[in-house]
Amino acid sequence: MENITKQLEGALAATRDINQVDSDKKQLVLQDLADALLKNVEAILLENEKDVQLVDINDPKRDRLILNEDRIQALAKSVLDVAQLPDPSGQLLSKRILENGLLLEKKAVPLGVVAVIYESRPNVTIDVAALCLRSGNVCLLRGGTDAFHTNSVLIEIIQQVLLKNQLNPNIVQLLPTDRKFVQELLTATKYVDIIIPRGSQSLIDFVRAHAKVPVIETGAGVCHTYVEQSATIDKAIAIVANAKISRPSVCNALDTVLLDEQIADSFLHGIIIPFQKAQVEIFADEKSYVILEQLKYPYLQKADDADFGREFLDLKCSIKVLDGLDNALRHIATYSSRHSECIVSNDAEKLERFMNAVDAAAVYANASTRFTDGGEFGLGAEIGISTQKLHARGPFALEKLVTEKWYVTGNGQIR
Amino acid sequence: MENITKQLEGALAATRDINQVDSDKKQLVLQDLADALLKNVEAILLENEKDVQLVDINDPKRDRLILNEDRIQALAKSVLDVAQLPDPSGQLLSKRILENGLLLEKKAVPLGVVAVIYESRPNVTIDVAALCLRSGNVCLLRGGTDAFHTNSVLIEIIQQVLLKNQLNPNIVQLLPTDRKFVQELLTATKYVDIIIPRGSQSLIDFVRAHAKVPVIETGAGVCHTYVEQSATIDKAIAIVANAKISRPSVCNALDTVLLDEQIADSFLHGIIIPFQKAQVEIFADEKSYVILEQLKYPYLQKADDADFGREFLDLKCSIKVLDGLDNALRHIATYSSRHSECIVSNDAEKLERFMNAVDAAAVYANASTRFTDGGEFGLGAEIGISTQKLHARGPFALEKLVTEKWYVTGNGQIR
Repeated sequence: MENITKQLEGALAATRDINQVDSDKKQLVLQDLADALLKNVEAILLENEKDVQLVDINDPKRDRLILNEDRIQALAKSVLDVAQLPDPSGQLLSKRILENGLLLEKKAVPLGVVAVIYESRPNVTIDVAALCLRSGNVCLLRGGTDAFHTNSVLIEIIQQVLLKNQLNPNIVQLLPTDRKFVQELLTATKYVDIIIPRGSQSLIDFVRAHAKVPVIETGAGVCHTYVEQSATIDKAIAIVANAKISRPSVCNALDTVLLDEQIADSFLHGIIIPFQKAQVEIFADEKSYVILEQLKYPYLQKADDADFGREFLDLKCSIKVLDGLDNALRHIATYSSRHSECIVSNDAEKLERFMNAVDAAAVYANASTRFTDGGEFGLGAEIGISTQKLHARGPFALEKLVTEKWYVTGNGQIR
Repeated sequence: MENITKQLEGALAATRDINQVDSDKKQLVLQDLADALLKNVEAILLENEKDVQLVDINDPKRDRLILNEDRIQALAKSVLDVAQLPDPSGQLLSKRILENGLLLEKKAVPLGVVAVIYESRPNVTIDVAALCLRSGNVCLLRGGTDAFHTNSVLIEIIQQVLLKNQLNPNIVQLLPTDRKFVQELLTATKYVDIIIPRGSQSLIDFVRAHAKVPVIETGAGVCHTYVEQSATIDKAIAIVANAKISRPSVCNALDTVLLDEQIADSFLHGIIIPFQKAQVEIFADEKSYVILEQLKYPYLQKADDADFGREFLDLKCSIKVLDGLDNALRHIATYSSRHSECIVSNDAEKLERFMNAVDAAAVYANASTRFTDGGEFGLGAEIGISTQKLHARGPFALEKLVTEKWYVTGNGQIR
């Protein structure tokens, strides 16, 4: 195959088929899919093993790639969860009769063709297919080479379920992993309505740089927690420790602590207990370095400029001591990636100023940034956390897999 | 000046200032702006004359460029109209208390920095500035070289109004017209939140090809009207004549008529009366050509393939005779630019199928496509008609100059 044009054409044609399927039928298809996953555990594990064997045993992506019976059951469960979410397509968003008698309705309709480019996790294949099916979208899945066998068998199972339900199998398609086809996908404005890159920063940057199709950027999270001088120190310590330690590899994990000078000493005395236990490496600015050195904190380095605005994705963080809310706001405006930002304070006026002034998808008062997540926000499974401002901001979940369409009904009106 | 970085930095800094201005104050600023335009009629006309003199008297853009007292009064009026529209920023979109006690609110907030690249019409300068001020956005205006003097004096007036109201003048800025700065603007992801190209297809294509900042595409309209066999012919003629003749230079004007074979003869007999009066040139497919030739229609050509899917923007249209709804849907799916599409019919089932199956920003049953317009839809002034599916579709008006922001308020919650 020299190009993916046939697959793109098939996807566009399939939008008309999935568009005619009602909400109940889509729920049934998803229930069938959950069943089919459970019935095909052996076949899936067999193909998965082929992928896993090709990855070095010490490579961290090996764990992300591995499926086992528990994980397949979890996949089936997540498909059933998506089936229970309300279908966002078809909803009437507004309705008015204009003075000239025209009936003007705005309805939510599926986006059309949704393409997702992702790396080794095979659960993305099932999550995206389920979300797109629920909302009436066609999806094009471009998974990583590492997961090729696993993704192939998963797509085969999905397409069998579609066929069994008399639906066009092109509603869910796997694209070939060869790099040369990515360029065709990224510029296929005639066929593809939206591209979502899901994975490393370098993948996202590549897509942003080359895409002509609109992109939803699910970007990096450089997340700050600012401990303001009026903060309850124990609460601040619990929030910072949770935001850093509970799952350091994800985008809503803490990267930088900003400390008001007045409470720096007492905060640092407390935070080193959970941090030392978890072996958190601290990149400290001058003032915090002096304190932490006196406290003999073992995992200590002097921060340089590059340690601010850095997404660590690891048990590492930077700390800066500063003077007051305005300086904290200035630091965040300079270094934030506009994902999730937090203030810990008991001063109502400062809380309000911080929440309004910080430009981010999610702003927090006195809670861990780790809550920025579709499931935690009650939106269900998410395709990613959008750090851009158009269409979707924050968790990009089922409810945003639609666009609007204006229906204008008249009886001969002219202008 | 070698780059526009200082202006971009100024714009980003100004977002924090306009963000703090409440709705009432923004209304007062717009009222001041309307007054200032009326007080400065002479100064505006003087600068406008400099621009107009440089354009050849036969160039159609000369008319678009010319201001006079009436047009300035219309500008002031449009500023007052925008002032009366509800401020979309600050609205509470959803509010829930999660099981863990977190208060989760979603609020509409200004997009931030909005850049508009446009051509010779100086009214865009005032319209965009007013819409951005109303919604709390900073705007960067990159107008055409032709309107440089006019735009400069208009921006000077706006900035004086901002200063008079103790506001940062960088809230509304004019960018230099030199082409080399456009590239910097299109890639300024750190400073600019959205770019809207407004003008010719070649401008839009250029922006789409080079922008890294998210773009709202306000694209071409290749608009079809399908006259189904059950249509009331007189109504169909009135709708088609209006859609083609009332303002042929705009994107919601008709480009192609699709006719069911059974009514082709009677429809064409009738439409030639208004079309001949307006000297509409018809590019006819084989079947309609035979009929129109017998009728001795004077402005008749044989259509070739390129005349379908062509945006004429002129008193020209193509006509095709076909057989039934499915063929009409297929033709539209192939040639539509997804702007505005119409069916004229008395068959309820076919009307519904057409409205649901056609993928376009606006679909019409028995009314002229000329209604696709922010004002007509009751949304107020528009920045353009979006033909893409993300964020805004159809008229891109004040209500879409916002994004969402999640406010999460806790008392120490951790995950």
